[in-house]
Amino acid sequence: MSDQPEDPVEAASDLIRRALKGPQDAEGLAAELAEIHPADLAEVYEQLDDALQDLLIQRLDLETIADLLEELDDEDTLEAVEDIAPGRLADLLDEMEPDEAADLLGDLPPGQARVLLEQMEDADEVRPLLGYPDETAGGLMTTSFVALRRQTTAEQAIQFLREVSPTSEIPYYLYVVDRDQKLKGVVGFRDLVIAQPQSPMQEIMDPDVISVAVGVDQEEVARQMSHYSLAAIPVIDATERLVGVITHDDILEVIEEEATEDIYRLANVSDTELEPDSPLREQVRGRLPWLFLNMLTALFASWVVSNFETLIGEIAILAAFQSVVAGLGGNSGSQNIVMVVRALALDRLDRRKIWSILGRQVLVGLLQGVIVGAVVAAVVTFLRGDFHLGLILLLALTANMVVAAIVGTLVPLFLARIGKDPAVASTILLTAATDSFGFFIFLMLASIFVRFFDF
Amino acid sequence: MSDQPEDPVEAASDLIRRALKGPQDAEGLAAELAEIHPADLAEVYEQLDDALQDLLIQRLDLETIADLLEELDDEDTLEAVEDIAPGRLADLLDEMEPDEAADLLGDLPPGQARVLLEQMEDADEVRPLLGYPDETAGGLMTTSFVALRRQTTAEQAIQFLREVSPTSEIPYYLYVVDRDQKLKGVVGFRDLVIAQPQSPMQEIMDPDVISVAVGVDQEEVARQMSHYSLAAIPVIDATERLVGVITHDDILEVIEEEATEDIYRLANVSDTELEPDSPLREQVRGRLPWLFLNMLTALFASWVVSNFETLIGEIAILAAFQSVVAGLGGNSGSQNIVMVVRALALDRLDRRKIWSILGRQVLVGLLQGVIVGAVVAAVVTFLRGDFHLGLILLLALTANMVVAAIVGTLVPLFLARIGKDPAVASTILLTAATDSFGFFIFLMLASIFVRFFDF
Repeated sequence: MSDQPEDPVEAASDLIRRALKGPQDAEGLAAELAEIHPADLAEVYEQLDDALQDLLIQRLDLETIADLLEELDDEDTLEAVEDIAPGRLADLLDEMEPDEAADLLGDLPPGQARVLLEQMEDADEVRPLLGYPDETAGGLMTTSFVALRRQTTAEQAIQFLREVSPTSEIPYYLYVVDRDQKLKGVVGFRDLVIAQPQSPMQEIMDPDVISVAVGVDQEEVARQMSHYSLAAIPVIDATERLVGVITHDDILEVIEEEATEDIYRLANVSDTELEPDSPLREQVRGRLPWLFLNMLTALFASWVVSNFETLIGEIAILAAFQSVVAGLGGNSGSQNIVMVVRALALDRLDRRKIWSILGRQVLVGLLQGVIVGAVVAAVVTFLRGDFHLGLILLLALTANMVVAAIVGTLVPLFLARIGKDPAVASTILLTAATDSFGFFIFLMLASIFVRFFDF
Repeated sequence: MSDQPEDPVEAASDLIRRALKGPQDAEGLAAELAEIHPADLAEVYEQLDDALQDLLIQRLDLETIADLLEELDDEDTLEAVEDIAPGRLADLLDEMEPDEAADLLGDLPPGQARVLLEQMEDADEVRPLLGYPDETAGGLMTTSFVALRRQTTAEQAIQFLREVSPTSEIPYYLYVVDRDQKLKGVVGFRDLVIAQPQSPMQEIMDPDVISVAVGVDQEEVARQMSHYSLAAIPVIDATERLVGVITHDDILEVIEEEATEDIYRLANVSDTELEPDSPLREQVRGRLPWLFLNMLTALFASWVVSNFETLIGEIAILAAFQSVVAGLGGNSGSQNIVMVVRALALDRLDRRKIWSILGRQVLVGLLQGVIVGAVVAAVVTFLRGDFHLGLILLLALTANMVVAAIVGTLVPLFLARIGKDPAVASTILLTAATDSFGFFIFLMLASIFVRFFDF
């Protein structure tokens, strides 16, 4: 740690750009490059243009490249791999952590992956990981963990740890298994440190070990690790054999991903990996289908309005205010949706309270409708010198916000109940309701009132 | 681990409900209750009604209550504390981890907190934590960590660990400090285990220790820990002295909180802690101000429409389709907003690419406008037997989606640039633009075309 703190990413960036400029003192720089934290190296790498990325890969040793690739996202990793000579690639995969190597192999063309696996020395560690879907415990876990037997003593365990390559990651805990590899307990490093040398694992271990099944969805893994505040969780197969370990940093990514999923789905973007600069084709594929769905509901709402064509022909100003009713209803309902979606996602929603939640939300809708409606009514009455239009707006806004509260609360709950993602399509369904009903109630009220009053 | 896996929360729930039912075998049940994982205990506790919560607290020993409180959220903790006799409360605080005790004391009335601090034995551990704002590194950190000196040998360190109370949490790493408590290095337990007994920390430690300053915002702490995949990060004060440690589980909460913040702000809910069943007063306070802002933009949009009152009086069907243009524009633009907001939040947005991102988004808007517009035009032409209205819709939709792309991309970028949260108000600003411009361009085109054609 230097006495003058400076941003490590910037320092790394300076160093890398100097290294890439010329051949002077290449060896000294290479040594310095290897000292950069892989996470910082990755951040700088992502900012380089393609030619410099290529050049950097050529300057780094295999171990550093392996560390770098483990930090890059899938897309950047694939691009980086294109810059690596095929002969070096198998060695590189051997250097990588088994779970990261498996991820990369899974993203490569099957033919190329097969050839690489044959060339790899550590193919046996990676092969079992290839079969698991990315979004399951099996897809997240690493096979690089330490499993001890119950009769192993603390002294023997420590001796074993000395022999394991010091660069291989050991995820926070040691696990204890029986002769069939069945998970029997967990031992913290601290417990091992303070244990008497002759104590067997049987005595040191905590037998109440929390684990997840290999096929469990990543969201459930995150929930378990977060619930029990675990730095790592062991993964077992159907016969309770220990097959892998998932660490806390994998879970951070899952939680970020799930949050992105919620946000994207609420805004009707179906491709969770879409970025502002993703290719045109991906943008359109992830976004256009939702606009078509929205188009259908918008055309339905316009059909509702078209039924009042004669009325609007007589009182054209109605056309100006119909959207106030529809828009505010949609806005109020989307406030409901996000609260329910988030409570469901964070597992905070007590399902026995659904009716009291609905009651409260309807009350909020009613109250907001009356307050906003009264202000709109006052403004419109003041501007137009007539209170009838204002009165209709007050009634229509209140009714539409109550509808918004009901739809905004029940739609995500219903979607969750039938096993769908509560964020998917819920805002579209809400807008369909608040637009159509908002137009209808406003124009219907106007058509009733028009018999009694002139506007 | 039992051979028949069952849900631990359900098992805990059964046990607790049995324990609360009657006095039979109270001791045996109390022992079993103490075996429940605090996280499961907390989940069951949250589901009990007030009377049973109260009863449960009375049945638990202080240590278990302390573990339970550490798992509850702030509100539930405060409620639970009301059920505890004042005389027990100071002892309870002594049992809690210093950071959790400080959080609780901070939430209690200052007078009560002062009295409790005087009664506490471990007040010295807690007092330094009281001054830090909740959302900073200081507010997240615990003071329960192990700091060793550089000349301490591995053997001495292990001896020291044996003497430290085995129930106190030690967060994953040991830290090495100099005589002024300045942070000098970090030692993993594994490194300690495999070190030669006579090696000093100076040799075992990694001097490149990543730390955060005590005043740093929790979001930055989360970013650092996630970037470097750390299970724990040391916290230093202005003079580089080690003052605390933050662990990965605290970060999970921060990341969940930040994601909720983004989602709520995008849907115009300003109180991030609002739940579907929060009190009416909080609901209205967190939601109504945004509806008023939305009301202003909606009234502005209706003023835009009112300028075309005569035109709509002549061709009332325009009122039915104006909202299709406005609504689809808003929907398309909100797709832009979430992508930009998320990219900013995850620090994935390369600011040098802003112009190319804008160009791409405008292209996507143009393309989506033309495609959706063409379909709308075809449908309307088919339904009404006239292509003029369809042509206007095609042009207006395309123009509005381009505007939506520009506004939806630039507004969050602009808010971020001036140091605001890019999610706050951006959807309201977007709707203001897409509604007003959508109405305007559609009705303006109609007023131009009306001279040439009959609808």
